[in-house]
Amino acid sequence: MKKIAIIGGYQTAFGELWEKSLGDLIEEAGIGAISDSGIEKNDVNCLYLGNMAAGRFVGQEHVAAFAADCLSLKVPAIRCEAACASGALAFSQACIKILSGKAETALVIGAEKMTDVIGSEAVTTLMGAGDSEWESSIGLTFAGLYALMARAHMHRYKTTREQLAMVAVNNHKNGQKNEKAQFRFPITVDDVIKSAVIADPLRLLDCSPITDGAASVIVASEDYVQKKKIENPVWVLGSSHGSDSIGLHDRADITEMASVKKAAKDVFDESGLKHKDIDVVELHDCFTINEIIGLESMGFCEKGKGGTFVEESELPTNTTGGLKSCGHPVGATGVRQIIDIYRQLKGVSINQVKGAEHGLALNVGGSGATAIIHILGVE
Amino acid sequence: MKKIAIIGGYQTAFGELWEKSLGDLIEEAGIGAISDSGIEKNDVNCLYLGNMAAGRFVGQEHVAAFAADCLSLKVPAIRCEAACASGALAFSQACIKILSGKAETALVIGAEKMTDVIGSEAVTTLMGAGDSEWESSIGLTFAGLYALMARAHMHRYKTTREQLAMVAVNNHKNGQKNEKAQFRFPITVDDVIKSAVIADPLRLLDCSPITDGAASVIVASEDYVQKKKIENPVWVLGSSHGSDSIGLHDRADITEMASVKKAAKDVFDESGLKHKDIDVVELHDCFTINEIIGLESMGFCEKGKGGTFVEESELPTNTTGGLKSCGHPVGATGVRQIIDIYRQLKGVSINQVKGAEHGLALNVGGSGATAIIHILGVE
Repeated sequence: MKKIAIIGGYQTAFGELWEKSLGDLIEEAGIGAISDSGIEKNDVNCLYLGNMAAGRFVGQEHVAAFAADCLSLKVPAIRCEAACASGALAFSQACIKILSGKAETALVIGAEKMTDVIGSEAVTTLMGAGDSEWESSIGLTFAGLYALMARAHMHRYKTTREQLAMVAVNNHKNGQKNEKAQFRFPITVDDVIKSAVIADPLRLLDCSPITDGAASVIVASEDYVQKKKIENPVWVLGSSHGSDSIGLHDRADITEMASVKKAAKDVFDESGLKHKDIDVVELHDCFTINEIIGLESMGFCEKGKGGTFVEESELPTNTTGGLKSCGHPVGATGVRQIIDIYRQLKGVSINQVKGAEHGLALNVGGSGATAIIHILGVE
Repeated sequence: MKKIAIIGGYQTAFGELWEKSLGDLIEEAGIGAISDSGIEKNDVNCLYLGNMAAGRFVGQEHVAAFAADCLSLKVPAIRCEAACASGALAFSQACIKILSGKAETALVIGAEKMTDVIGSEAVTTLMGAGDSEWESSIGLTFAGLYALMARAHMHRYKTTREQLAMVAVNNHKNGQKNEKAQFRFPITVDDVIKSAVIADPLRLLDCSPITDGAASVIVASEDYVQKKKIENPVWVLGSSHGSDSIGLHDRADITEMASVKKAAKDVFDESGLKHKDIDVVELHDCFTINEIIGLESMGFCEKGKGGTFVEESELPTNTTGGLKSCGHPVGATGVRQIIDIYRQLKGVSINQVKGAEHGLALNVGGSGATAIIHILGVE
């Protein structure tokens, strides 16, 4: 596709930020990205906001207009929502706007303020990402949905409880140095396996937390980059969006994600790259099983071999902590992944992959009804 | 801009549809648009859904994935939200996608199921379109916000209570023949003025209702239209999006809408048309004062003369009943306006404007933080 550049980004602290409102988070993220990119605020042509459920979390719909106002921006403001993939959706739609020629630059913010409601209300709100008529109504939580997938995967492919745990262990290890992460302590396989059962076989340390936070990037057209003489931007080499049924019960196979498979095929086709060209991967470990399914469905390993891949592979994944350690402010996560890949490709990550030239970010909505993948690269 | 065509559309009944779920409405609207346009379902490249608050109204977020699933579509599904302008926002983003070359066709659906919650909960949810921190929190309703605008307009410009009422009278008159409208009875100025006070000076018959409903259109690239030999499509001649502060208290002047002024300037510039070229207008009469402010802010009359314009002008406005008579399922309204202009330009409106060649639709979000305008035309 026509070249689109990322020229800066920012992430707020992720965590239980009692002292910050949704507006505070958006303001910090927006100013942070503008400052990091070095552009003038007046050069921002439009705002794309990824947010899942501010209506239920803080009583605010019209969220993009609210966000623009937080930043005193009088530009078209578009809220994009696809549950936990809202961040990547906003990013992808901003890229499309620039491709269309209707804008030269876009500020993309992902934000979610989740801790203003009590925990059970947050869990109920998150179930809005599933099928409200057939899943939420019978009391299925998201941990429950992913537990069904995990159990099926363990049954069919002999994936072990330990292999699931290793996903969380890796991501906590990576998050230790991340000052923006919600959880910065190492855990062991034994810790995971002995933590409280949430939805069998998933335990507390298999699950990403409830989090407040925001993340942001500035995207720009190639013309803009040349005009402003911006050096060494990161380029968007592919952007894809796969879909599947919203309810788990409608899927032919719950041990894989058809949406991820489709998005992976499309993004590799578009970028012209192969799996071996990818130096670093951010992927959606809302629950540990999802990292395994994601790796398989994207084709980084054979179907059913994700557990072994997690044990043995040296592919750098979730190098800043993933959703498990960073935390998962649902609308922000997809944008946070993009920034973390951006930083890897700029050579400034906290856990730098030496010589990283191409990175991939997979953001999943719900139990896989939406999968959005971006491949970024440097020249 | 590069030419984008509308090739079909559909509207469900609008009203208190106790027997229909959000899914039912989306399914009917989606199938209706596909059928009306004559394309195959497999030819739909992507789905853009306008929806304000399904999370609060029916417990469903991830609404576009839900909608795609209702139609068994496995295509990228994007929910766009900008409060009451969500419908036009979805339409505008679909046009941008086609402009970008990443899709040839898009199904755009606007949908809202509002009557599954009690009235006070619906009013609270709608306040999410305003500033949650500064307006909703002090108990200001949307009727309250527009009442402030109406009172200021009456005070400054001598706009009369009768002139406000004439907006509702006109729109009810136009909606009488509309089988899809929620209210199909004529009203008089006296009826409006003597109806119950909602927020002084606005009365019951100044206010659009709480409504269930969906509307849909198919947009396509010029190449697709030529390839499929589609005859006499309607073209999108301009698409603009203006923004303003989300809270009324931050505006320099609450008797006009800066967002509408900006969007109007942009859309006339883009289309190359003048006000006198517009044969028919759909505009956002959520409360009667908003039709007057919309006409002024778009430049159809001088500032302060909107009341007189409503009394005297022969410009056909809201020819199918507007939000007042059709009903206002918030996410659906912007798409419903587009279809109604489309039908005027195809010569098949229930209140046909003879020889209509150009039509304009203004969809407003909240108290004016978002204004989206489209100009459509035939060749």
